[in-house]
Amino acid sequence: TQQFFRPTKAIIDLQAIQQNVKNLKEFLRPNVQIIAVVKANAYGHGDVAVARAALKAGATVLAVATPDEALHIRAHFEEPDILILGASPVSFAPYAAQQRIILTAFADDWIQQAASLLVDEALPLRLHIKIDSGMGRIGIRSEQELLELYQTIQSTDHMELDGIFTHFATADEEDTLHFDQQVQFFEKCLAVIPNKPRLVHASNTAASLVKDPHLQYDAVRFGISMYGLSPSSYVKSILPFPLLPAFSLESELVHVKQIKSGDPVGYGATYVAPTDMWIGTIPIGYADGVIRKLGGQEVLIDGQRMPIVGRICMDQCMVALPKAYDIGEKVTLIGRQGNTGVSIDEWATKLETINYEIPCIITTRVPRTYL
Amino acid sequence: TQQFFRPTKAIIDLQAIQQNVKNLKEFLRPNVQIIAVVKANAYGHGDVAVARAALKAGATVLAVATPDEALHIRAHFEEPDILILGASPVSFAPYAAQQRIILTAFADDWIQQAASLLVDEALPLRLHIKIDSGMGRIGIRSEQELLELYQTIQSTDHMELDGIFTHFATADEEDTLHFDQQVQFFEKCLAVIPNKPRLVHASNTAASLVKDPHLQYDAVRFGISMYGLSPSSYVKSILPFPLLPAFSLESELVHVKQIKSGDPVGYGATYVAPTDMWIGTIPIGYADGVIRKLGGQEVLIDGQRMPIVGRICMDQCMVALPKAYDIGEKVTLIGRQGNTGVSIDEWATKLETINYEIPCIITTRVPRTYL
Ligand SMILES: Cc1ncc(COP(=O)(O)O)c(CN[C@H](C)C(=O)O)c1O
Ligand SMILES: Cc1ncc(COP(=O)(O)O)c(CN[C@H](C)C(=O)O)c1O
Repeated sequence: TQQFFRPTKAIIDLQAIQQNVKNLKEFLRPNVQIIAVVKANAYGHGDVAVARAALKAGATVLAVATPDEALHIRAHFEEPDILILGASPVSFAPYAAQQRIILTAFADDWIQQAASLLVDEALPLRLHIKIDSGMGRIGIRSEQELLELYQTIQSTDHMELDGIFTHFATADEEDTLHFDQQVQFFEKCLAVIPNKPRLVHASNTAASLVKDPHLQYDAVRFGISMYGLSPSSYVKSILPFPLLPAFSLESELVHVKQIKSGDPVGYGATYVAPTDMWIGTIPIGYADGVIRKLGGQEVLIDGQRMPIVGRICMDQCMVALPKAYDIGEKVTLIGRQGNTGVSIDEWATKLETINYEIPCIITTRVPRTYL
Repeated sequence: TQQFFRPTKAIIDLQAIQQNVKNLKEFLRPNVQIIAVVKANAYGHGDVAVARAALKAGATVLAVATPDEALHIRAHFEEPDILILGASPVSFAPYAAQQRIILTAFADDWIQQAASLLVDEALPLRLHIKIDSGMGRIGIRSEQELLELYQTIQSTDHMELDGIFTHFATADEEDTLHFDQQVQFFEKCLAVIPNKPRLVHASNTAASLVKDPHLQYDAVRFGISMYGLSPSSYVKSILPFPLLPAFSLESELVHVKQIKSGDPVGYGATYVAPTDMWIGTIPIGYADGVIRKLGGQEVLIDGQRMPIVGRICMDQCMVALPKAYDIGEKVTLIGRQGNTGVSIDEWATKLETINYEIPCIITTRVPRTYL
C-alpha cells in the first residue's frame, strides 16, 4: 500500500456500509436481490473496497455508470455480475461479452451493430433493456419500441435478454403523481413482454425504502443509502431503519500563528483580523474538492467548531482558532469529534446542492483510507 | 496507453502551454528562471505532460504543493529541480534529500526535527525559506524569525539554504496598497540575510506579467497563465502578450429522442418541455466535476450553443437540441467549435468562482488526452 505524506485523507467506514446493506436486506421482501451501485468510484468512497463490503453484506450485483468503471471492478472481482447503467459504445460489446459485463440496451440500431461485432464470442452478451418511464434520460419510450428491441435480441445469436429496468425521477418526493405515472408505464411495458427476463428492477434507494414493496420486483438498486446518506429530507423523515454514514474527511494543522488586529488572511486580503487572533493552516483546498464556495464553513478541532476564514486556496485553507494548537492537531472537515459533527448534508445545504455530489467531488488527490 | 470507452475526455493542448511559457520567457528579464507550477495535477491539466512541455519550453524548476505530488513528478523526471511549495511533514525530509526534492521551510522546530532524521543522507536537503509577507498562509512573519531559521540551517549538516521566497495575495488587483506592503516586507527580509541563497523568488503569474520587473528576482512562479488563463479580469485587460488556453472538455451524444410538450426531463422533473422538442443525453455529470450548479450552462454542438436542461445527474446530463442529431455527434463543453467558444472563464462566472478552480475539479474519471 502506498504511503501518503500529506496528512489529509478521507476515511471510509466499511462496517457502516456493510451494516446499511444488511439492514436493507432484512427490510426487503425475501429473495429480492441487492444491486450495489458503486458507480463514480462508489460515490467517491472507493469502488473496490465498497464493492467488497457490499458483496460481503449480501449484495449480488455491482452497478456502474461506464465501461471503464466496469473493467476496473472486473479486474478486482472475478465472480459477481456487473451491470453498466449508462450507454456503452458499440465497440465495447465484445469486451463486455468476454468479461461477463451486462450492458444496458435502449436502441435497436445499437443492438444490431453490437450483434455484428459478437460473431466470435464464446459467451453471450447479456443485456438489460432500459425503459424511460419518465426520467427523460436514456431508455425506450413506447411499448412498440420495447417489442422491437425484445424481438431483435431474441433473434440474435450471442445475445441474451437478462433484465429489464427503469429509473424513477421523483421517488424521494412526497408528491407521488409523477412517480405513479412512471410505475404505470413500466408495468404496461412488463405486460407486453412474452417472457419476463431474469431480473426486473426499478427501485433506487428512495423507492426501495419508502414505496410499495411490490416495486422491489426481482432486485433493487441501492446507492446513496448504502453510504449512509438519505436521498432527500422527506425520505430522511420516514426512514425504515437508521443509516450509518461512512465518509469522513480529515487533516491536520500544519502551521499555527498569531496575527494582529488588522492583518489580512488569504488571497484578495478579504479577511481582516478583527482583533489579535490565532490562525491555523490546513493542507486541503479546492483542488481537493473543498470548493471555494465553502468559505466560512466550520471544521472541527479539539471537539469544537471553528470557521474557515479568507478565501479557500487550491491546496490549503485557513481557520480561526480560539488559542494556539500544536502542529499536527487533528482537523475534521466531515465527520465527528466527540459530541459534535459536520455532516455531508451540512456541506450540501451550504453549497445549495445534494449530498450525493459532495463525496463525488472530493478529488482523488485525497487518498481514501478504510476502517 | 489505456483505452477509454466513454466518449468523454479533456483535451490538453501542449503546444499552447509551450507557447505560453516561451512567450513569458521572452518577456522576462534575461536569466530569470521559470518555475512551472504544476501542482494539483497541473491545475487539472495532467502533471507529467505539462511538466514535460514546460521544461521543453524553457522552465527550469517544477513546483508542486505536496510531497506526494513531488514523488509523482520525480518518478517521471530524473533531472529537474522540484520544489514543494506547501508544508511537508518532518518524516518526508529524508525522502526529499534522497530524491533531490526541495522543501519549503518556515519553522525552526521543523528544521531541527528534520535535521535529526538526515544523519545518514548522502545528499543535503535543500530548503527554501518562506516569508509570509501578508498572505497569512504559511511562512515566517518577522526578520528575527528569519535570522533564526537562517542560522539553524547554516549550522546544520545535511541542509542547504537554496532559496527564499514569498507569495502575493493581491498581485492580480489594480489597487497596489497591500501588494506594496508585501514587497517592502520581503525586501526588508532579504536585506537581513548575510548571504543571498541561489534562488530568490516572489512573483506568481500576475506579478510576473504586470508588476515592476525587478520583482522577477532570480525566478518567477508561473501558474495560471501557463495554462492560457488570466489571473483576473484586471490582468486580462493589460496582458503583455496573448495567452493560449489549453483545456477543452468534450463528449458525444449517446442518446437523442423527441419528447412531447409537457414531458419532464431529469431528477425532480424540474424541466418540462414547453413544446415538442429534441433532447440529447451527454455522458458527463457531476461526478466528472460538471457540478449541479452548472445546470442551464450552454454546450456547443454543430457549432451552436445549446443549453443543458433539467438537473445535472451524477454521470449524465441532458441538452435541448434544435433538431435530431446522430448518436456520436460531438459535444464541446469547454473549448471551441468554429467561431463559437465556451471558455473556462464563462464557467467560472456562472459558478461565481475563479477560472483556477474549474479544471482542478474536473475529476480524474475524465481522461486527459494530449494534442
Ligand atoms: C439507473 C440508476 N439506478 C440506481 C441509482 C441509485 O440511486 P440512489 O443513489 O438514489 O439509490 C442511480 C443513481 N443515479 C445518480 C444519483 C444520478 O444518475 O445522478 C441510477 O442512475
Ligand atoms: C506559492 C505559490 N506560488 C505560485 C503560484 C502560482 O500562482 P498563479 O497560478 O497565479 O501564477 C501559486 C498558486 N497558488 C494557488 C492558485 C493557490 O494556492 O490557491 C502558489 O501558491
